[in-house]
Amino acid sequence: MEKEISQAVIRRLPRYYRYLGELLEEGVERISSSDLSSRMKVTASQIRQDLNNFGGFGQQGYGYNVQFLYDEIGRILGLNETHRIIVMGAGNLGQAITNYMKFEKFGFVITALFDVNPKLKGKKIRDVPIYMIDELDEYCKNNKVDIAALTLPKEKAETTAKHLVRLGVHAIWNFAHVDLDLKDSRVVIESVHLSDSLMQLSYNIVKNS
Amino acid sequence: MEKEISQAVIRRLPRYYRYLGELLEEGVERISSSDLSSRMKVTASQIRQDLNNFGGFGQQGYGYNVQFLYDEIGRILGLNETHRIIVMGAGNLGQAITNYMKFEKFGFVITALFDVNPKLKGKKIRDVPIYMIDELDEYCKNNKVDIAALTLPKEKAETTAKHLVRLGVHAIWNFAHVDLDLKDSRVVIESVHLSDSLMQLSYNIVKNS
Repeated sequence: MEKEISQAVIRRLPRYYRYLGELLEEGVERISSSDLSSRMKVTASQIRQDLNNFGGFGQQGYGYNVQFLYDEIGRILGLNETHRIIVMGAGNLGQAITNYMKFEKFGFVITALFDVNPKLKGKKIRDVPIYMIDELDEYCKNNKVDIAALTLPKEKAETTAKHLVRLGVHAIWNFAHVDLDLKDSRVVIESVHLSDSLMQLSYNIVKNS
Repeated sequence: MEKEISQAVIRRLPRYYRYLGELLEEGVERISSSDLSSRMKVTASQIRQDLNNFGGFGQQGYGYNVQFLYDEIGRILGLNETHRIIVMGAGNLGQAITNYMKFEKFGFVITALFDVNPKLKGKKIRDVPIYMIDELDEYCKNNKVDIAALTLPKEKAETTAKHLVRLGVHAIWNFAHVDLDLKDSRVVIESVHLSDSLMQLSYNIVKNS
């Protein structure tokens, strides 16, 4: 079970996880690779290849056990553990992430926001308190932080990320419009570049018109 | 110039565009593929291959003209045109997108938000008015809409997207946790799946620990 799975497969796993979750919600217990194929719009052979990485794949004509695969992929993705997240920046985006309840379902719990705006001091988003940035060191000393989400201007992102790493945070979910270069192999970074995504869309609009 | 460029290259263009923009801000006029390579952490040969798609590439030892490449890639990405965006859903995420000034710099102008919450009626985010969803048809009749950003629960996303397509909107920027299936080849969809991104991060945390 613990053999190396290729990064290409890994990148497809959240999508499998999402579709398997929808099947569970619909009460589907087993699904053939061809049914899953038409739902997900990938070839059945791709699905068979990908899911063969996880054992427990159905016999010919019998299909996959949806719950088993869902749990197994969830485990591979680390969703059986709780991940504590702090959000750097309590502006609209930071608040949007904090308000997005679905993350908790997957084990991601937001425990605090940090901002420089004194007007936000002591406020809460849902039940999550907003602290001032000068309380960050103390907070990280007293609380386990697994992930820091950066919803900051790009000018501040790298300095803040480096400071967080010094405080022991080794995973960064970066929304700033910059690639972080932390020169530290222990740090895991995942970036969401909204502008890049919008540019892809724009390219396809121009191409289609 | 108008030969077909592969999707793999296209997906890398926004990142080139971002780095070239940073170089321009720093006043850099020319850059060699090896300097760009060490900045972007991709191989120089990859950069040469990618940028050869756009002509105007420098001679050996002379480097790329930063402004030329920046403009050319911007043109390929359709950033020389204005794209009018409406945002469906005026919650935190919709407001965050509307407040993000940088999109305008790239030609993406948000013209309206739509929501079902009557408390939001008549309010503005920056200068952008929030309308009620029952004003959508009229709005689309009287205003050009190039892109609709969906910041809605997944249950409402597909119905809303289909309605928008009937109203003549052919590009969807989807933030809902679902793959939209509109069965209409004219429609261009780009999804930002935040949960998928968080799961990638979680996988890499578990792998690294």
